[in-house]
Amino acid sequence: MKAVVVKKPGGPEQLQFQDFSKPKVENGEILIKVKASAINRTDIVSREGKSGYMANPILGIEVSGEVVEKGAGANIELGTRVMGLVNGGGYAEYAVMPADRAMKIPDNLSFEEAAAIPEVFLTAYQTLFWLGGLTDADTVLIHAGGSGVGTAAIQLAKKLTKATIITTAGSKEKLDFCRSLGADICINYKEQAFDEEVLRATNNLGADVILDFIGASYWEKNLKGINTDGRWVLIGILGGTVVEKVNLMELLLKRVQIKGTLLTPRSDAYKKELTEEFVSSVMPLFLENEIRPIVDRVFPFADIQRAHEHMEANKNVGKIMLKINE
Amino acid sequence: MKAVVVKKPGGPEQLQFQDFSKPKVENGEILIKVKASAINRTDIVSREGKSGYMANPILGIEVSGEVVEKGAGANIELGTRVMGLVNGGGYAEYAVMPADRAMKIPDNLSFEEAAAIPEVFLTAYQTLFWLGGLTDADTVLIHAGGSGVGTAAIQLAKKLTKATIITTAGSKEKLDFCRSLGADICINYKEQAFDEEVLRATNNLGADVILDFIGASYWEKNLKGINTDGRWVLIGILGGTVVEKVNLMELLLKRVQIKGTLLTPRSDAYKKELTEEFVSSVMPLFLENEIRPIVDRVFPFADIQRAHEHMEANKNVGKIMLKINE
Repeated sequence: MKAVVVKKPGGPEQLQFQDFSKPKVENGEILIKVKASAINRTDIVSREGKSGYMANPILGIEVSGEVVEKGAGANIELGTRVMGLVNGGGYAEYAVMPADRAMKIPDNLSFEEAAAIPEVFLTAYQTLFWLGGLTDADTVLIHAGGSGVGTAAIQLAKKLTKATIITTAGSKEKLDFCRSLGADICINYKEQAFDEEVLRATNNLGADVILDFIGASYWEKNLKGINTDGRWVLIGILGGTVVEKVNLMELLLKRVQIKGTLLTPRSDAYKKELTEEFVSSVMPLFLENEIRPIVDRVFPFADIQRAHEHMEANKNVGKIMLKINE
Repeated sequence: MKAVVVKKPGGPEQLQFQDFSKPKVENGEILIKVKASAINRTDIVSREGKSGYMANPILGIEVSGEVVEKGAGANIELGTRVMGLVNGGGYAEYAVMPADRAMKIPDNLSFEEAAAIPEVFLTAYQTLFWLGGLTDADTVLIHAGGSGVGTAAIQLAKKLTKATIITTAGSKEKLDFCRSLGADICINYKEQAFDEEVLRATNNLGADVILDFIGASYWEKNLKGINTDGRWVLIGILGGTVVEKVNLMELLLKRVQIKGTLLTPRSDAYKKELTEEFVSSVMPLFLENEIRPIVDRVFPFADIQRAHEHMEANKNVGKIMLKINE
C-alpha cells in the first residue's frame, strides 16, 4: 500500500510516498480501508522532527473508511463505515485502529466529512469540558476560531452549553463564519486588543475558560483577559514557545489554572474513554445536523505536500482533507 | 476590645493595638470570644500592604474561642467551643464568623491547638484533593515540609491515601520531624538537588502532585521533577515572583496542570463547602489522635510583633499561635 513518510525533518517537500505492506491486525484491532484522512498541526510538528512521541513512521492521526479485517475481540462488523483516531499511520491506504475507539459514521456524512471529526472534535470536547470544566454561566474565549479545533469548539460550546462564546481570528471572512457557527463576540486580533474586548464583554471580569493555541505571544493578554478561577487550556504554541518574565503572583491572585494538553500522545485507554463519552454526548447532534464537520478543502492523496502548505499558510477555515482510495 | 492593625505597610514594627467596639453579629453569624489565633503568611503579605484583598483593617484569618452571641439563623449553641476561618479580624478579643463554617473543637484539643487547624489543614486538604486530585497510586512532593501547611499536608496525605510522600526542608531537625509525621522521602534542599532526588525516587517519572510554596526559584526543578499529567499547585511565592523564562512546550509535552490558589480571598460559599467536607473527612481523625495540629510556639497576644518576626525567621516547625483573652 501507499503511505506518506518524512524523508528528513523539514518542510512539506520532505513528505514522500513509500510502499508498505498492509498493517497487521492485532487482538482488539480493526483494519480500515482508508477513504479519507486529515491534516493536523501535530503532523507538521512531526514532519519537522519536533514531536518526539510518534513511533509510527507513517504520518497522520485520524481516518475514515471501511472495516476490512478484524482481530479477535474486535466487536464490529466488516464493511462498517468508521472514523476515529489512529496512533500514526493515517496518511495511508490502510490503517489499523483499536476497535474500541472506532466511531460509526452517521449516514448523513460522507467519508471526507467524517474524517474531519475525530481529532478536532475530540480535542475541543476534551479541552472545553474535561479540562476547561465549561458551564452555562461561563464565558469561553476560543482563539483561532477559524481553525479546525476552533470551529469544532464554537459549535460544541453553543450546542452543549449556554456559555457566552468569544472568539478571535485574523480576517472578517473567518469571523463571519465563526458567528454563523454560534460565536457571540468575534474579535479581529489584527485590529483589536483582544484582552480589552474580552474585559469589555464580561463586565471587566474576564473569560472563565480560554482555549489557547497560541502560547507565548498571547501570554500577557490571556492573563489580563482571564477571570478569577479561570481555566486556561494550552493546546498549541503557534505564537512561540518561550514566555519571558512570568509573574506568578498574578496566577496566584487570580487563582488561574493553566493546563497543558495534547491528545495524540495520550494512552489508548484515555482515547477510548474520551471517544465513548463523545459518542454518547455529541454524535446524535451530527445526525440531526445540529453540529457539522467543517471541511475547508479536499486534496487528492497525491497532493499531500500542497495540503501541508495550505495549512501552513493559515488560510483554511476548518479542516484540510485528503481523499484516499477513491 | 483590643485588636491588631497595621500603622502603615511595612515590617512587624508596624503592628499596633487599637481599641474597637465588639463586632456586630449579622444574620447567620456568630460572635466568638477569641481564645487563640495564629500567624499566617498571608498576614505578613497583608501587613506589607501587598495582598489587596483584605477589607478588614484587623489582621488575622483564623481563631478558636467560645460562641457568645449569635445572629438569626445561626444554628449553634452559645458557649460552644469553635474554631474556623474569619474574613480578617482574627487578631482580636472578639471576632465574627459565618456560623456555617464554624467547626466544633474536639474535646481532646486545647484552644491553642484548635486555632492551629483551620487555615493550614483546610489549605492542605484543598490543595491535595480538590486541586491536586491526589490518589493512592500517586507520588506527592510537598515543599516546605516543616511549615504549617507542610506539616498538615504530610499528615493528610499519609492518613487519607497510600500515596508516596516526598518532602523538602532546610534542616535535619525539620526533616526528621517530617519523617515522624509520615513523609517517605525527606530531601534537604540546601544539600541536595530535589529534582534529581524526586526522579530517583520515582523511577524517573517524577511527582504526580506538587505543593509549591516557593515559586520562581524552584520553577525549573519543579518542571523537571513533575510527572506527565502532573498537578502543580502554586500556593505561595516565598522564593520569588518572576520566572525569567517559561518554556510552554514543556508544559504541553508533559501535559502539566499549574493551579494557582489562595484560600483567604475565596467566597464564603467556597469556605463553607470546604469546611463541611473537611469536617466529615478529617475531623474524626483529630479525635482519634491520628492527626494532630502542630504548634511550634504560643505567644502572648501582647507579643504580636515578636510572633511575626518568628515566622519571618523561618525557624518554626508548624504553627505560631497567639493566646488571647487568657
